[in-house]
Amino acid sequence: MTVLNEKLDSSAAFDDYPTRKSTEPALLYRRDPVVWGDGGAGPIDAADLSGFEEKGFLTVPELLTPGEVAECAAELDRLASDETLKRDERTVVEKDSDEVRSIFEVHKISELFAKLVADPRVVGRARQILGSDVYVHQSRVNYKPGFRGKDFYWHSDFETWHAEDGMPRMRAVSISIGLTPNYLYNGSLMIMPGSHKTFVSCVGETPEDHYRSSLKAQEIGTPDEGSLTILAERHGIELFTGPAGSATMFDCNCMHGSSGNISPYPRSNVFVVFNSVENTCVEPFSAPRRRPEFIAATDFTPVA
Amino acid sequence: MTVLNEKLDSSAAFDDYPTRKSTEPALLYRRDPVVWGDGGAGPIDAADLSGFEEKGFLTVPELLTPGEVAECAAELDRLASDETLKRDERTVVEKDSDEVRSIFEVHKISELFAKLVADPRVVGRARQILGSDVYVHQSRVNYKPGFRGKDFYWHSDFETWHAEDGMPRMRAVSISIGLTPNYLYNGSLMIMPGSHKTFVSCVGETPEDHYRSSLKAQEIGTPDEGSLTILAERHGIELFTGPAGSATMFDCNCMHGSSGNISPYPRSNVFVVFNSVENTCVEPFSAPRRRPEFIAATDFTPVA
Repeated sequence: MTVLNEKLDSSAAFDDYPTRKSTEPALLYRRDPVVWGDGGAGPIDAADLSGFEEKGFLTVPELLTPGEVAECAAELDRLASDETLKRDERTVVEKDSDEVRSIFEVHKISELFAKLVADPRVVGRARQILGSDVYVHQSRVNYKPGFRGKDFYWHSDFETWHAEDGMPRMRAVSISIGLTPNYLYNGSLMIMPGSHKTFVSCVGETPEDHYRSSLKAQEIGTPDEGSLTILAERHGIELFTGPAGSATMFDCNCMHGSSGNISPYPRSNVFVVFNSVENTCVEPFSAPRRRPEFIAATDFTPVA
Repeated sequence: MTVLNEKLDSSAAFDDYPTRKSTEPALLYRRDPVVWGDGGAGPIDAADLSGFEEKGFLTVPELLTPGEVAECAAELDRLASDETLKRDERTVVEKDSDEVRSIFEVHKISELFAKLVADPRVVGRARQILGSDVYVHQSRVNYKPGFRGKDFYWHSDFETWHAEDGMPRMRAVSISIGLTPNYLYNGSLMIMPGSHKTFVSCVGETPEDHYRSSLKAQEIGTPDEGSLTILAERHGIELFTGPAGSATMFDCNCMHGSSGNISPYPRSNVFVVFNSVENTCVEPFSAPRRRPEFIAATDFTPVA
């Protein structure tokens, strides 16, 4: 009986989404709803909401007016040229060129983006999907250059947020609002529709084998090729295009990525992660310590 | 008078497509026809031929039957697993994995591909566009892996063939026959339609400045970002998709490239460059010596 109790008490036994703990990858069933509650009142109509449940994403063709896009673009320029902000730890600059790539916690840095996050068109959709009040787990603006934009390999955000930030359950949603056009050929977002219902458990460091684990460091948190092939065969790959001002909302466990961008057209967007106040982060599930506050909030104050 | 004669004799004065000779890039007019002769008899219909003249490419949706695709795919597998061929200088293997990436001069290595090159559906189209007998300037098969396929930056093939292989005029055409499907998201060919009518003169090594030129070695033969932006704004970017067995023929001076491929779907194709027998190669226009025979033929025997 003691043995049984010990097993039940072990946190490993209660982790529905184990990752970076094994030497073998695995495909696990999602154990959480996609749309929480009855999805009643809110800006998302019934068809879009049911599409979100099924595919793990929805698009909002004209979330922002052209005037608002222009305002946001001007704010992007202002932030990128702020020399004080450039030296802030929340700003990621390119090693070689000193060009700004991302600015984190932008809803705290910029009044305009704070207003955007709290806009009913934005936060209202998040509340409707998550069935509760929500707070901002992470926000950032991204500047992706033309000619030399790098790819982002396939990943589920939740895998990282669970492993490194201690997010317990799949009850978070992201919105990416394009501030430049997304074309077929400038490294736009790709999602495997329906992949959000499968959790890809990733291979992690095996502490008793440091040599190999350090050689394979780049594979930590990266889905294996076998799992990706199965998901792609089952779900296909959807590529998102649209004018500036359009948005994509996607579930925290969507398998997504983007190709590099050799076209002359840069891509900028604002990216906000809403988490349910009923799903606040605890200790990391597979990391020695949590990431910094500006990447993974521990201030759970709901968006007003 | 002597001075004038010297100028007229200088090869630089007669180079219509100077490249890698200056410190400034330039956009130059094409000084050659696209379709040579009257484009009379041949497998290409009038609409496709006029599209080729205007856009610099044409597609052939079902050039190969599914049975022929299967034969070619089996031949690809056979060649890739031939250990003798793997050690041949004509085979390019990945440094890390020893995987075969390309095999050159495949029309001499493989009877099947020799037959394909001489097939009236293939060589007939090249003869019709170039208005003469043609020979193979280069042939190869490409194996592009999924998950980690690299991008190919924008370039005009003619720029290289002129500079390094001594191809005098724009009177060559390439055909790429897909042996796997081309999707929107697996690094398919991109062309700027109409770009073939502009020659982008590239910045070259300045011999009196070795230090800087060696630092910028990767830029030799690479179009500058300003020129690419002008061409993209003027012409747009077209992305080619289609099932295995479909083909794209494109003019030697098309500005083209491809994104990387993080999808699970590899891309394999056979690629053949036909040059007019009236445009045989001379000494390189901007290189100390010509590239090897298997990359740039000096055997000008017409395809029978």
